[in-house]
Amino acid sequence: MAETAAAGSSVRKRVVVIGGGFAGINAAFELAKLAVDVTLVDRSNHYTFQPLLYQIALAVLSPGDVAQPIRSLVRDHRNIEVLMDEAIGFDLPQRRVQLKTGSLLEYDYLIIATGSTHSYFGKDEWAKFAPGLKTVEDAIEIRRRVLLAFELAERQMMETGVHPALNFVIIGGGPTGVELAGAISDIAKLYMAKDFRHIDPSMAQVLILEGSPRILGAYPEDLQVKACEQLNALGVKLRTEAHVTDVQAGYVMVGDERIDAVVTLWAAGVQASPLGKLLGVETDRRGCVVVDGHLNPPGYPEIFICGDLAHVEQDGKQVPGVAQPAMQMGKYAAKRIGQLVTAPRASGGSGKDALFRYFDKGDMATIGRKAAVAKIEWPFKAHLSGFPAWMAWLLIHIFFLIGFRNRLAVFRQWAWTYLTFNDGVRLITGSQELPGWDMHDARNGVLTTKPLDMGSPKT
Amino acid sequence: MAETAAAGSSVRKRVVVIGGGFAGINAAFELAKLAVDVTLVDRSNHYTFQPLLYQIALAVLSPGDVAQPIRSLVRDHRNIEVLMDEAIGFDLPQRRVQLKTGSLLEYDYLIIATGSTHSYFGKDEWAKFAPGLKTVEDAIEIRRRVLLAFELAERQMMETGVHPALNFVIIGGGPTGVELAGAISDIAKLYMAKDFRHIDPSMAQVLILEGSPRILGAYPEDLQVKACEQLNALGVKLRTEAHVTDVQAGYVMVGDERIDAVVTLWAAGVQASPLGKLLGVETDRRGCVVVDGHLNPPGYPEIFICGDLAHVEQDGKQVPGVAQPAMQMGKYAAKRIGQLVTAPRASGGSGKDALFRYFDKGDMATIGRKAAVAKIEWPFKAHLSGFPAWMAWLLIHIFFLIGFRNRLAVFRQWAWTYLTFNDGVRLITGSQELPGWDMHDARNGVLTTKPLDMGSPKT
Repeated sequence: MAETAAAGSSVRKRVVVIGGGFAGINAAFELAKLAVDVTLVDRSNHYTFQPLLYQIALAVLSPGDVAQPIRSLVRDHRNIEVLMDEAIGFDLPQRRVQLKTGSLLEYDYLIIATGSTHSYFGKDEWAKFAPGLKTVEDAIEIRRRVLLAFELAERQMMETGVHPALNFVIIGGGPTGVELAGAISDIAKLYMAKDFRHIDPSMAQVLILEGSPRILGAYPEDLQVKACEQLNALGVKLRTEAHVTDVQAGYVMVGDERIDAVVTLWAAGVQASPLGKLLGVETDRRGCVVVDGHLNPPGYPEIFICGDLAHVEQDGKQVPGVAQPAMQMGKYAAKRIGQLVTAPRASGGSGKDALFRYFDKGDMATIGRKAAVAKIEWPFKAHLSGFPAWMAWLLIHIFFLIGFRNRLAVFRQWAWTYLTFNDGVRLITGSQELPGWDMHDARNGVLTTKPLDMGSPKT
Repeated sequence: MAETAAAGSSVRKRVVVIGGGFAGINAAFELAKLAVDVTLVDRSNHYTFQPLLYQIALAVLSPGDVAQPIRSLVRDHRNIEVLMDEAIGFDLPQRRVQLKTGSLLEYDYLIIATGSTHSYFGKDEWAKFAPGLKTVEDAIEIRRRVLLAFELAERQMMETGVHPALNFVIIGGGPTGVELAGAISDIAKLYMAKDFRHIDPSMAQVLILEGSPRILGAYPEDLQVKACEQLNALGVKLRTEAHVTDVQAGYVMVGDERIDAVVTLWAAGVQASPLGKLLGVETDRRGCVVVDGHLNPPGYPEIFICGDLAHVEQDGKQVPGVAQPAMQMGKYAAKRIGQLVTAPRASGGSGKDALFRYFDKGDMATIGRKAAVAKIEWPFKAHLSGFPAWMAWLLIHIFFLIGFRNRLAVFRQWAWTYLTFNDGVRLITGSQELPGWDMHDARNGVLTTKPLDMGSPKT
């Protein structure tokens, strides 16, 4: 490698990385060590630590705690430049990426790691009534809706004496759905208990609608059972084999049954980034690009597909679209590029020519503020649940958060929140309307001036 | 007071406070001690510590650091209820407030403290090109624009080899204008220096356009001179007696002169909340309600106008529309209501019947990250500038931040930012367009693959 760098910059290869998520950032960190020039393209200016997004959505953490400008992350790696732009197509023969702004970006090696997005199964019109959780903006929107529901209920109670049931419906019983459900339940029962005078936030009901027979389908059965128990303990209701047939402002249809909802959230389906299909190679039904053992689409040894966008089979099973494999794929692709750049002629069959292999350390999902389920594969095998699993979750997530500042900030905020049941990130910004919340017909009353029933005043 | 409470809740008076800013919150805290029922109405769900808003706008602090849910602030005061709604009119004879949702809110005493908003001097169409800074949403929008300007310049430089000059124009040379100017200059020269590869953020130019002959018009002349020196040291340009005649996407007109601007910010004028005029009493040219020594509009001893909305004369001068008088007015009004409730018959002329008097402790404005000007009136008289003034500013602002969590968080974040020149709140959320930034005509090139000029790679 040192020899290559010494050979002069005129032969330095350009690597373009599209997407600054787990796969892209880890690829960039690895490419920083090589004698290559790297252009990291992302349509947003920040890397988002997605496993903690739900904590923004539920007002425990601030956006700045779990997202970090990509430029800051790579600022000390002088061979990496960051371009805030969006890839919208490819010219594979000429090795160029088409950017949304109209320019073409040339590459010698290309890493595509643009991840996945919500899938409403063809019903995109449901999106505005049931937002999903993939970006910081999504998280702020969910926070807005959840907090606003309590505010509007209090207001309606004061103005009319009644309010709609505080039903929160979460469509999808995977890890995100379970985490959102546990957190909403906590917010209502613990953090908001003393904040309202006319409504009782603890009467909020959280319902998970899962289409398959079990929640947390990727987890072993004993942990699925534990998760159900822990959700029940929080008062979260579960309905499995519940097929949602319509989502409208204020309600969800399951078959012919109407389920009222002040807020509906979408945690049901994901589909691959549309970029995969634009490559013109084989994709699976979710739009993931089918790749070989080097993470290359067949016929393109200079292109690597990493993270959620890649369809990788291992031991007869598809590698799951979660953070760990994405990080490992990013690193693998970068190392592989290092090999190709250093010894391009040996790439056909040298000993270095190792295939990608996902090393599974396990998986975990939190359930409220002191429980979780964890399937640990490494450094020992274990199934944990309850508080021990939650502690494991806590430590691992602080460890993997990028950036010292973020770790400190998140740790401090968690300690504060969990010790005091208090928190200061419950800001409602943006619109003050909720779809389906229509109280105008019930209004035009004079607010009662009956004394509040609050015990004796402080003197 | 204790006797009144003991006399039974049937005679408890209802106090409605409109506006949860400095005046309203301080009134509420004081009313919490009385045997009255309080309804605190604000159209947002949070109290905002306005003097630090510019630090959100310039990405040093998170919104959650300087804004706090009003419910959390008053949660332990059980005689206070919070209503997230907007007052849109009054029925003074019946003592009712008209709410936007259509209901009427009855009161025995009314405190109106809805503050002020930007004034574009009748040119409201300028607002979208030159946002002002009054709310958390404003601050996030300004942050978005300032950060996006650097991102778009980097992108355009990569794609076309040129970028428009990074001119930031701030209209208005009061404290907010000066603080924004100093902070943008800091961001460009210190925090962003190492983040970009193609543009030089330190080439950013900040220009303050002030219509009057001097910036910081409310400050003594020696401090105005110091402020100019400190702004010059930061590279901020000043133009006084510069009358803005038009604000468009991408530029500002001063007379016939066109000044290009990638971002224009408005810090020029404020006008009182429109609620003042709806009272049907005398208002001044800015819409402030002219009140007597009890902060009552003439003829309405049960109504108190506090904060920026009040026009109060003292020693022949108008009390300024800043935080301190607002806090003092809120407290005064609440205490006055306490007197009226306890001994209503003595209200005509008892010894308790003190008039409001603004106790001026001084005023300060920061200029970048280590300078400020401070006119201190209490506990001693002094004019400070430079670093001593900045230290004074720091201590006072941490002290007056409400909420232990916020003080800790802000202190930690400041220490981190000022020590490391780094920060993690530089998120761009929302749209990725800037008004006036049109590079489409300059595009459609192939990005050069020339090696980045960045020294040797890390190996």
